[in-house]
Amino acid sequence: MIDNLPHRTELSELGEFGLINYLTNNIKLNNPSSIKGVGDDSAVLNYGDKQTLVTTDLLIEGIHFDLTYVPLKHLGYKTAVVNFSDIVAMNGSPKQLLIGIGASNRFSVEAMEEIYKGIYLACKTYKVDLVGGDTVSSPSGLFLSATAIGEAKAEDIVYRNTAQKGDLIFVSGDLGAAYMGLMLLEREKHAFKADPKMQPDLEGHDYILGRQLKPEARTDILKLLKGVGIKPTAMIDISDGLASEILHICIKSGLGCNIFEDKLPIDITTITVAREFGIDPTTCVMNGGEDYELLFTISQADYEKAKGIQGISVIGHLTEKNEGHNLISKSGSVVPITAQGWDAFLKKGMK
Amino acid sequence: MIDNLPHRTELSELGEFGLINYLTNNIKLNNPSSIKGVGDDSAVLNYGDKQTLVTTDLLIEGIHFDLTYVPLKHLGYKTAVVNFSDIVAMNGSPKQLLIGIGASNRFSVEAMEEIYKGIYLACKTYKVDLVGGDTVSSPSGLFLSATAIGEAKAEDIVYRNTAQKGDLIFVSGDLGAAYMGLMLLEREKHAFKADPKMQPDLEGHDYILGRQLKPEARTDILKLLKGVGIKPTAMIDISDGLASEILHICIKSGLGCNIFEDKLPIDITTITVAREFGIDPTTCVMNGGEDYELLFTISQADYEKAKGIQGISVIGHLTEKNEGHNLISKSGSVVPITAQGWDAFLKKGMK
Repeated sequence: MIDNLPHRTELSELGEFGLINYLTNNIKLNNPSSIKGVGDDSAVLNYGDKQTLVTTDLLIEGIHFDLTYVPLKHLGYKTAVVNFSDIVAMNGSPKQLLIGIGASNRFSVEAMEEIYKGIYLACKTYKVDLVGGDTVSSPSGLFLSATAIGEAKAEDIVYRNTAQKGDLIFVSGDLGAAYMGLMLLEREKHAFKADPKMQPDLEGHDYILGRQLKPEARTDILKLLKGVGIKPTAMIDISDGLASEILHICIKSGLGCNIFEDKLPIDITTITVAREFGIDPTTCVMNGGEDYELLFTISQADYEKAKGIQGISVIGHLTEKNEGHNLISKSGSVVPITAQGWDAFLKKGMK
Repeated sequence: MIDNLPHRTELSELGEFGLINYLTNNIKLNNPSSIKGVGDDSAVLNYGDKQTLVTTDLLIEGIHFDLTYVPLKHLGYKTAVVNFSDIVAMNGSPKQLLIGIGASNRFSVEAMEEIYKGIYLACKTYKVDLVGGDTVSSPSGLFLSATAIGEAKAEDIVYRNTAQKGDLIFVSGDLGAAYMGLMLLEREKHAFKADPKMQPDLEGHDYILGRQLKPEARTDILKLLKGVGIKPTAMIDISDGLASEILHICIKSGLGCNIFEDKLPIDITTITVAREFGIDPTTCVMNGGEDYELLFTISQADYEKAKGIQGISVIGHLTEKNEGHNLISKSGSVVPITAQGWDAFLKKGMK
């Protein structure tokens, strides 16, 4: 994916300052809170009566992404969006982004430009300003750090630790597809390694591949909830799999939960591919990760208002802590939920 | 430096969430603007009538630091401080910090703890809150990203592009020492590689080693300037060497400059070691980098007020753009200033 670009300019030809200028000289700041962007020691932001949200991620080639099948533009897009998703999961609006890139001389200026194209597209889509960053060399491999800054009124911010007993548990969209997309890409990679003449068999899998390669932050869900006057009691984005995320909310809120397997939203293509791989679709949902959907809780009093919203599903409710964290299977058996999610020290995946 | 710790716990024993909890569970937030720190999707900050400053760096083992001679605690301290220095260079106060660490299984939990000890010490020294971050695995080597957030009143912020013709150019402290500290450490490393029984010959070099391994952000200089009622017309911190930094101010302000070699502040130990290495001390100052001193310009009308401040030196003045960027040597010859500084794609050094 890094050698099929039409031109190749060595990073050393531009030098560090040259590269930053080259990559950032067309930035226009759009948000009133962005006073000064790239080009000084710090960006300058101005938040009046709003509170400021800030989040950071570090992404490493061979751990969080595989350039054998991830196009550089998609990598840039996803790096930005997963950080926006962290702001959205606080019920906030992402407004600024800072990007750090470490690249070895295996990467050309054109390769860096592709990454930035994806970053700029994400910024444009989500109306976020790129306000700064750092571009450095690396002895081998590609490293990305992203810091997103957002805003929200103090009374609108939704934390993880404020869920109440009896609250209903919702998720947006469907789950498990991003994980099956990754499995599919990994399978084709290994097949290609075994026989470089083979053509990748990815046809008919646009949906799950898109979920893996080009996730979105669910700003639309925040709007829909606000539109009917619902403020979630707790919220988190699903980067590590549903099991891990619901445990975060439960443990921080001092509660238990019952999740119902037959309520889990799974796309039919996810189910088909999961079965093809011999993986239980529920396992994809619980432990797969990278869906970047929102997991949130609302009080029962808000259920009538929530019912009419398209694209969200109620999957369970919160209980007393001593009732445990349970998945109620389709057959009615009770399975304790454990976090086997996306552990960065154990397996691959962008968190 | 990573194998001489008394205990070794594998990172995989704790897992990602375990490690983050382990490393951050004693954090107390001190700044009123820090509403929520580690433990949710984003930190939450609250800036009332102040403007927000934010800056990020990405640091990679083998490029920006060498663990053969950099103690992990110093690495953590420096990673934090160089980001604070970017906020200080805007005439702001650093208030929050986010840290991303990518580490291979070569690093133990104790090694990560040492890095965090340095980070916490820097936060304590500069009254900054650690509010978030990301800890991930890496296939090899150590990677650090740091994002500092600070505040300043809008009218106090000092940019790079606002210097005026005729302004006087000042630097704080002395320059070139951090570079000579690096040269010394590199020399002893190579000597040790050639003969592992040799003892490092670092005696009597505390000053330049300290300048390399434990730099400080010059918040004290901001206070002194404020104390006498001076607001610099432009300011930058010296991470890449004086040549590169003065060119940033000149080019962004559309001006030229004359810098006088005999006015450059150099510590006597820097001069001694530079000569021992056969390096011109002025070259260390102009191109060495990593001193993290402040380079700033003031109007001539403020000179009387500045004169009494200890620890700052006037080194030149700003001219018309067409007069060029000149170093006036001790013999009176005029040498054009070029940026050969700390280019991340060419040589080693933390920027």
